[in-house]
Amino acid sequence: MAACIFCKIIKGDIPSFKLFESDKVLAFLDIEPLSRGHALVIPKHHGAKLTDIPDDQLSEILPVVKKLASATGAENYNLLQNNGRLAHQVVDHVHFHMIPKPNPEEGMGISWPAQKGDMDKLKQLHEALKSKM
Amino acid sequence: MAACIFCKIIKGDIPSFKLFESDKVLAFLDIEPLSRGHALVIPKHHGAKLTDIPDDQLSEILPVVKKLASATGAENYNLLQNNGRLAHQVVDHVHFHMIPKPNPEEGMGISWPAQKGDMDKLKQLHEALKSKM
Ligand SMILES: [Zn+2]
Ligand SMILES: [Zn+2]
Repeated sequence: MAACIFCKIIKGDIPSFKLFESDKVLAFLDIEPLSRGHALVIPKHHGAKLTDIPDDQLSEILPVVKKLASATGAENYNLLQNNGRLAHQVVDHVHFHMIPKPNPEEGMGISWPAQKGDMDKLKQLHEALKSKM
Repeated sequence: MAACIFCKIIKGDIPSFKLFESDKVLAFLDIEPLSRGHALVIPKHHGAKLTDIPDDQLSEILPVVKKLASATGAENYNLLQNNGRLAHQVVDHVHFHMIPKPNPEEGMGISWPAQKGDMDKLKQLHEALKSKM
């Protein structure tokens, strides 16, 4: 993917503040951070959405997120991975944000418009989804 | 962890709309969903924060999130995992939300108070974190 900014970072064509690298993943600082220590973990395999990445290319992602969280010493932190424009994705190469939340002002803000659980609807949905898993 | 609601769901002491289960993970519908198909994936290993879960207990999480996203057919979706009260965590057993984002009103809302990247500060932080990775 010649035009992909994260593929360019992987290749080294664009510099980055690398924190971890293996055959499968790269971790680096977000240069427009939401908080001190905000970092990204990406699979080297190019794909826009999580569902585009083979399972075996994802095996190191969460262990590296743990390493990042530990290195920053964050007590509170969010892990976020967005898929699609509506879901706030900007760069079309799968990336996992590890975002420390040191106080209410810094880090990511979350709004949670929860719906009342309609048990009949949930039961129907459950049947429909189970058959597709 | 006798008092943990998710441990009770794993044991079957509290009913749930299970979508996937293995030795390591359980996936089930969120009963106060942000959108149709909002589901949770949890490790069976009890731990409050991601950094409390051994790597080998995390290996199936992302593959199962992929399965959920595919089953719902969501084009747009967020993966979110919160650690600590400040970061919006309510239940102290690690859980990954797979939240379809079908339109601007449903699903999770995100605010993004990005800071300007101060390259000198980032460089210092990079050195400090690299030594801890
Ligand atoms: Zn790419
Ligand atoms: Zn538990």
